[in-house]
Amino acid sequence: MSLTPEQQAEIEAARAQSAPTRRAVAPGLEAILYEAVPLLDHGFVRVVDYMGDDAAIVQAARVSYGRGTRKVSDDRGLIRYLMRHYHSTPFEMCEIKFHVKLPIFVARQWIRHRTANVNEYSARYSVLDREFYIPAPEQLAAQSLSNRQGRGHVLSGDEADAVLRLLKDDAERTYRDYAWMLNEGENGEPADPERQGLARELARINLTLGTYTQWYWKTDLHNLMNFLRLRADGHAQYEIRVYADAMIAMLDAWTPLAAEAFREYRLGAAQLSATGLQVVRRMLAGETLDAASSGLSKREFGELMALLGRGQ
Amino acid sequence: MSLTPEQQAEIEAARAQSAPTRRAVAPGLEAILYEAVPLLDHGFVRVVDYMGDDAAIVQAARVSYGRGTRKVSDDRGLIRYLMRHYHSTPFEMCEIKFHVKLPIFVARQWIRHRTANVNEYSARYSVLDREFYIPAPEQLAAQSLSNRQGRGHVLSGDEADAVLRLLKDDAERTYRDYAWMLNEGENGEPADPERQGLARELARINLTLGTYTQWYWKTDLHNLMNFLRLRADGHAQYEIRVYADAMIAMLDAWTPLAAEAFREYRLGAAQLSATGLQVVRRMLAGETLDAASSGLSKREFGELMALLGRGQ
Amino acid sequence: MSLTPEQQAEIEAARAQSAPTRRAVAPGLEAILYEAVPLLDHGFVRVVDYMGDDAAIVQAARVSYGRGTRKVSDDRGLIRYLMRHYHSTPFEMCEIKFHVKLPIFVARQWIRHRTANVNEYSARYSVLDREFYIPAPEQLAAQSLSNRQGRGHVLSGDEADAVLRLLKDDAERTYRDYAWMLNEGENGEPADPERQGLARELARINLTLGTYTQWYWKTDLHNLMNFLRLRADGHAQYEIRVYADAMIAMLDAWTPLAAEAFREYRLGAAQLSATGLQVVRRMLAGETLDAASSGLSKREFGELMALLGRGQ
Amino acid sequence: MSLTPEQQAEIEAARAQSAPTRRAVAPGLEAILYEAVPLLDHGFVRVVDYMGDDAAIVQAARVSYGRGTRKVSDDRGLIRYLMRHYHSTPFEMCEIKFHVKLPIFVARQWIRHRTANVNEYSARYSVLDREFYIPAPEQLAAQSLSNRQGRGHVLSGDEADAVLRLLKDDAERTYRDYAWMLNEGENGEPADPERQGLARELARINLTLGTYTQWYWKTDLHNLMNFLRLRADGHAQYEIRVYADAMIAMLDAWTPLAAEAFREYRLGAAQLSATGLQVVRRMLAGETLDAASSGLSKREFGELMALLGRGQ
Repeated sequence: MSLTPEQQAEIEAARAQSAPTRRAVAPGLEAILYEAVPLLDHGFVRVVDYMGDDAAIVQAARVSYGRGTRKVSDDRGLIRYLMRHYHSTPFEMCEIKFHVKLPIFVARQWIRHRTANVNEYSARYSVLDREFYIPAPEQLAAQSLSNRQGRGHVLSGDEADAVLRLLKDDAERTYRDYAWMLNEGENGEPADPERQGLARELARINLTLGTYTQWYWKTDLHNLMNFLRLRADGHAQYEIRVYADAMIAMLDAWTPLAAEAFREYRLGAAQLSATGLQVVRRMLAGETLDAASSGLSKREFGELMALLGRGQ
Repeated sequence: MSLTPEQQAEIEAARAQSAPTRRAVAPGLEAILYEAVPLLDHGFVRVVDYMGDDAAIVQAARVSYGRGTRKVSDDRGLIRYLMRHYHSTPFEMCEIKFHVKLPIFVARQWIRHRTANVNEYSARYSVLDREFYIPAPEQLAAQSLSNRQGRGHVLSGDEADAVLRLLKDDAERTYRDYAWMLNEGENGEPADPERQGLARELARINLTLGTYTQWYWKTDLHNLMNFLRLRADGHAQYEIRVYADAMIAMLDAWTPLAAEAFREYRLGAAQLSATGLQVVRRMLAGETLDAASSGLSKREFGELMALLGRGQ
Repeated sequence: MSLTPEQQAEIEAARAQSAPTRRAVAPGLEAILYEAVPLLDHGFVRVVDYMGDDAAIVQAARVSYGRGTRKVSDDRGLIRYLMRHYHSTPFEMCEIKFHVKLPIFVARQWIRHRTANVNEYSARYSVLDREFYIPAPEQLAAQSLSNRQGRGHVLSGDEADAVLRLLKDDAERTYRDYAWMLNEGENGEPADPERQGLARELARINLTLGTYTQWYWKTDLHNLMNFLRLRADGHAQYEIRVYADAMIAMLDAWTPLAAEAFREYRLGAAQLSATGLQVVRRMLAGETLDAASSGLSKREFGELMALLGRGQ
Repeated sequence: MSLTPEQQAEIEAARAQSAPTRRAVAPGLEAILYEAVPLLDHGFVRVVDYMGDDAAIVQAARVSYGRGTRKVSDDRGLIRYLMRHYHSTPFEMCEIKFHVKLPIFVARQWIRHRTANVNEYSARYSVLDREFYIPAPEQLAAQSLSNRQGRGHVLSGDEADAVLRLLKDDAERTYRDYAWMLNEGENGEPADPERQGLARELARINLTLGTYTQWYWKTDLHNLMNFLRLRADGHAQYEIRVYADAMIAMLDAWTPLAAEAFREYRLGAAQLSATGLQVVRRMLAGETLDAASSGLSKREFGELMALLGRGQ
């Protein structure tokens, strides 16, 4: 369960409130504001605040380009133009804040995106909850043989059982020992009055990387899309990809025009190297090429053919 | 005049609109949203969007510090605690967007604050208006003799007259020649059909640094306060300080508790060097000190005595 | 003339010095260290310090990817792999510092790249030299008719003469008046003892955007390549492009393997949109397409055909 | 043991090399370049590259302030002036790169300093070593009763023994199970040919936060000092403070003048709030104050008196 009944009630209460504002309002995002989308076994992501909408992107672009832009194009066309030409500053004019609950190993990948503001739950100050990520059986994959960072076949049978049991036992044991070392009882009293209890900042080192943490994470629309492009990609680890996928749905609700342009010019787009571009030109001119004659490495040639739908 | 009647009408229209939102609303800032505060001879600053309020700072801090903070202190106490101990990340959870019209030489100082998003009017794409900063007579100061970057006495008499006339004539002449070189007439037709007109990106080099530009400038509350502390300071150039002063009033309207803490722990605060701290301790212990016996340089000793209200 | 004899002597002196270091040394860059490449009429760019080389990129990647990378590939292959897959952090491990002299309007574009460190000559503290950019006659272009930000045909005849004369006269006049208002003579004495002289921070507003400034600009290799990709592009203004072009030659001297990969996967690379990729696939499958049947806008279809060498 | 004999040999080899350079050389740092300072039970920090020295700070400042600075002051005076007045950009002109081995929970605090470049060992690609932090007995502190984030008395007797045993047992068990799940044997063969082995990116979630990781961490001198001021502070957790302390010694070796100014104006400096400054002035004027009459909260009054050496 991702949310306690207490948290669910808090969300309902926040959603029930409404006040007038003179600011830009994004109706699609208002509709889902504060609602938590459950992810993995105990995680979630939800939008807790935002600033701006598709019109704010357009407005910023029109400040930059002045009178010239007024007549040229409608909002959709302008947003697509900006995305296509990597004019990123108008997208930076929108901001969004998420509340995320996620395993620590996912948080460690996520935090590498530096252009964002973060407030994470501190295990120096407070006690972490007894929640840790255990992969679903269908996610229990072997190491990929072809790709050093990827997953291969799903484990099955005895091996799968043994792995799941170890993950669960070790997480439970390390958490139980963490709690014992803390020695914190009800009402701020020690659980065992004979013991002092270990400082929280030390006891936490006994927890595993699958333990859940949570944070507020705030970024602008441009950097959000950078994050989503990288983390919704097939090369991203499954456990962060589910967050990115859920956040793309939130992007759709927030700035539908920017989201559409993002799919066309980023998510679904393809990059051709200088040599790769020559290969495409030569093929269109009727030439038949193989890796050797292409000027590309075997691997790059294979990837290019796959991209072009020319499986061999 | 900072605003055209057209712009004034746009502002009125934006202010007349209102829509319900589930987000945090800052009533003080809503009251002045979109309104332009006129500055210098043609400039202004106004808030065009924001995200969060004092409660959002508190909420972010409580996510970080967890249950522990719940009972400890009220919002005001917690915000002061955060400010005092340089816990800056909760302040980063609030965001604000300004629309600013300002002379180019002010924009050049301002842009040095890198942790912000900017969309500036582009003189490559569009034609700049015929507006340039001419200092008011009481701002026409001589170079300071004691301070390489400051201003001394106000010029007067013939020198003041001559300077004002030169500033005005040169600004008008360079703008007139800019417009002539552009050769842009009504409705996209050339003013003089015999001439091609110089490209905008080139013609603009004829404009002076006093020419007005405008931009959207967006930053978080933490970085806003950094900006304000530096630019509202007595060492900042007068022409940027008037913007910072006006923005501090907007800060008061937006997050009154954070603004109060900002005054106590930043704006009105003092820094003592390691040696300066020893000097204060020795004075409190009854010792009488001069620059030589203080261990400070003469200049630092003088500044410390001024700070402590011990003029000599 | 970009450099005074004094500056030229300083450069010679710096180049004559040599000291042993245990750090990585890039021989190609050592060979040109401190040497100024003249640009435009008074500008230059030169490298004044650096850290790291191609091997430092490889070393950082191997720390990240661990033992696995040891055997896989040689340095060139690994650097190309990193560039191709947008693994940017190893490139951030190299740093470079430039000394640049450039017109203020170019500096205003350049500074928009925020991930860099800058120390600019301050016209609040010091007096700017009497140097301003006047375009060479072959750069005196009209506004492009098809492209709002570009240049069209070169001006000629009377219009060219008039434009050049205006640019020159206005720059000279505004500088002369700047100097008169400053009233600074030899040895710190006023030029005219009857006058106080205007503060430097005010007098400078009389200068035009073509006036030269200078700065130290320091960035890491990843952000340098971002800068170069955007500013060496055909859409960049000519006056900043000449700097980017000169700096690409310095990149070649510094990290030849990274520079080669940069050309293959960035400078010479092409981006296909999701729909554009489908168009290429359909063409390779033998379909004949026009704008209408392609699903692309007319403009995007035209650009794609140009990219693919299929002019119409 | 922090370093394997293999690593120690690599360091010796790197230190034995020397090549001539035209760049600025910092002799104090050259003397210790590459050498690892052992920290905690398995960690270390070492400098692996740098750019600039005290003279580079001065040089950058002189570019900014121009001719005016030439005569004013010697290098030491100028560097102290810059530090005192928070003129940070000249310090950004120096860059340094560390290689650090550290427990994951320390890495999680460290990474919050965003203005730095990082290449961390990836547990998606490679297998982490069997090394985890176990606090020394004298570091095994209880939770502070007065301070939610601090440490109180050192544990002793049975409780200390039990805690150490738990930390050790859990770390060993989770690592052993991690290795078993990976099923990686010698030469890339599976340890048990009957099992597939779990993907590395999943197996790592079984490791505890005390497990050691390593990274290259590169930053500029200004941001390094920000990091050191916060992490060498008494409020920082002991396990990160030992790294900061070791790095301050490296700062001394690199830029001795900047390091001295850093101690005077940052590390040993004190901040007075607006009200605190009034309290000091009133005390110097002979007034006797207590918390109630001071206008400060009891806590702030107590802290101020402690700062001023006026214990009660």
